[in-house]
Amino acid sequence: MINQQIHLVSRPEGEASADNFKLVDVPVPELEDGQVLVRHHYLSLDPYMRGRMNDSKSYAQPQPLDQVMIGGTVGIVEKSRSDAFGVGDKVVGMGGWQQYAVVDANQPGLLRKVDTKHIPLSAYLGPVGMPGVTGWYGLTKICKPEAGQTIAVSAASGAVGSVVGQLAKARGCRAIGIAGGPEKCAYVVDELGFDACVDYKAHPDPKSLNAALREAAPDGVDGYFENVGGRILDAMMLRMNAFGRMAFCGMISGYDGAPMPMAYPALILQSRLTVRGFIVSEHMADWPDALKELGAGVASGKIKYRESIADGLASAPEAFLGLLKGKNFGKQLVKLV
Amino acid sequence: MINQQIHLVSRPEGEASADNFKLVDVPVPELEDGQVLVRHHYLSLDPYMRGRMNDSKSYAQPQPLDQVMIGGTVGIVEKSRSDAFGVGDKVVGMGGWQQYAVVDANQPGLLRKVDTKHIPLSAYLGPVGMPGVTGWYGLTKICKPEAGQTIAVSAASGAVGSVVGQLAKARGCRAIGIAGGPEKCAYVVDELGFDACVDYKAHPDPKSLNAALREAAPDGVDGYFENVGGRILDAMMLRMNAFGRMAFCGMISGYDGAPMPMAYPALILQSRLTVRGFIVSEHMADWPDALKELGAGVASGKIKYRESIADGLASAPEAFLGLLKGKNFGKQLVKLV
Repeated sequence: MINQQIHLVSRPEGEASADNFKLVDVPVPELEDGQVLVRHHYLSLDPYMRGRMNDSKSYAQPQPLDQVMIGGTVGIVEKSRSDAFGVGDKVVGMGGWQQYAVVDANQPGLLRKVDTKHIPLSAYLGPVGMPGVTGWYGLTKICKPEAGQTIAVSAASGAVGSVVGQLAKARGCRAIGIAGGPEKCAYVVDELGFDACVDYKAHPDPKSLNAALREAAPDGVDGYFENVGGRILDAMMLRMNAFGRMAFCGMISGYDGAPMPMAYPALILQSRLTVRGFIVSEHMADWPDALKELGAGVASGKIKYRESIADGLASAPEAFLGLLKGKNFGKQLVKLV
Repeated sequence: MINQQIHLVSRPEGEASADNFKLVDVPVPELEDGQVLVRHHYLSLDPYMRGRMNDSKSYAQPQPLDQVMIGGTVGIVEKSRSDAFGVGDKVVGMGGWQQYAVVDANQPGLLRKVDTKHIPLSAYLGPVGMPGVTGWYGLTKICKPEAGQTIAVSAASGAVGSVVGQLAKARGCRAIGIAGGPEKCAYVVDELGFDACVDYKAHPDPKSLNAALREAAPDGVDGYFENVGGRILDAMMLRMNAFGRMAFCGMISGYDGAPMPMAYPALILQSRLTVRGFIVSEHMADWPDALKELGAGVASGKIKYRESIADGLASAPEAFLGLLKGKNFGKQLVKLV
């Protein structure tokens, strides 16, 4: 039996490109005791992967060359030599960019059984998975929303941002999104229920962007969830209220090379802001609380989400490069089965 | 009776200059019921005053033109029509740049009696006053030092920085200072007891400054107390350990005009830093705890400090401009009596 994989074979100089990846066929090995074979149904594509492609100091080890790209996956157990998992179990894990994964079921946390009666399997890679918990953690633990306050989030139509705004609304806040293009902005307001959404592409200069944010958030912003960095961050800092909180979750605009400076760091002092960077995998103790709220929200239809689905493993590199340019609309997945 | 005052008469375009100030003679008014007349012995000069000279959005109201410059003062009550204060009482207040102040003793918080048996009067403008509490608050509430960790502070020989490092040492930390010039650095290590001090003037380029900080803080920095901003902040961010805390207290390097960008804001995410700006006057509830530790430390000689004393009110503008350029050595005061 053949397992198609995608390896990282070179590191980007500047922008990532399809040449950095290579499709490889390898045989699926026989299972040893305690192992299970998972067939991946969906592969998750996420911005953090761009950081792993670099060989620079970061919070995480770089993705090694000539090995399967890391990534979250959902699938179904096809063979099992473990008592913990049976054939047919739906599971979520970090199987990487490949069709099959052999997983040591004895190692805790590698594989988690999920229930697909009320929640679609793919949602475990989105609002009820890592992106959802990321939004939940940054919002509740860092932005600390209070009813009547204004919460803003960039990449608002994305897997993380869409959750941030909807959870903020559920807490009685005004929710402001920033997204690229009129279609995404309309979705953020009309479908997700944000109060306003600023199309940053329609405001290429700081003055115009500042004015649009002022209109969207007339009372200022109390909590900001940052997914992109760069000029959007600079503009948002000018809108932050005294004692505002900023959760730094992503800096996608700076992944490709030259560091993006922050224009007005003195505002952190002048507005007495609290700015905190976080990585959701370092806060596993909070996942159960988060997944409880997120799972209930998705099952009941209260939390809405949208997926961009690429077809087949070979499409993963292009879909990933598109994600980095904001071409996806909602959670970017690759469908493998 | 004549009261000499210094007024702000114009706002700086770029660097502040002596022309922004004017010495004015006014008569001391008769006291009304409930008022006291304080003769100022020392005037405090502090970097925050530079911010007040601008007419820009900031956390505080700008200093109004053609009025007495604000500032902390210590002095002795010369006349009293209040039961709360008697002639001869030593008091600390915000009397401003003038020889005498008439204070409404009924308004709580304007004037505070102090004990000079074990603590010199001038220390209430330094380690046992606003600068000391500033250091105490930023260190204990934001940098949150733990024994064995490394704490760094810029402007380390100054009124705030000297307290930060000494309190960090008392908590079992390694204390690293940054200061300008070999004399200040020697004082920081030899007199104040810091473990190391980096002379930023000896390291004008980033590479050299980074190397010096690496040598001073070989295990990285867990808490950083920022008084200056600019290239020192950029260099320090590269040294911050995962989950490090940064207290933004001052951005003196950016007061004169062009905003100073932060070069690597993505490090806030990558190193999962918490960065918080604060103003000590917004945390009055913590002052008693702070003053208790600081007063005991100064009285016992455990907390050391140094003063630069300019003579006479007319010397205040030049002394203040010198402070902005780091010409002072320790707490900058103006002696009025």
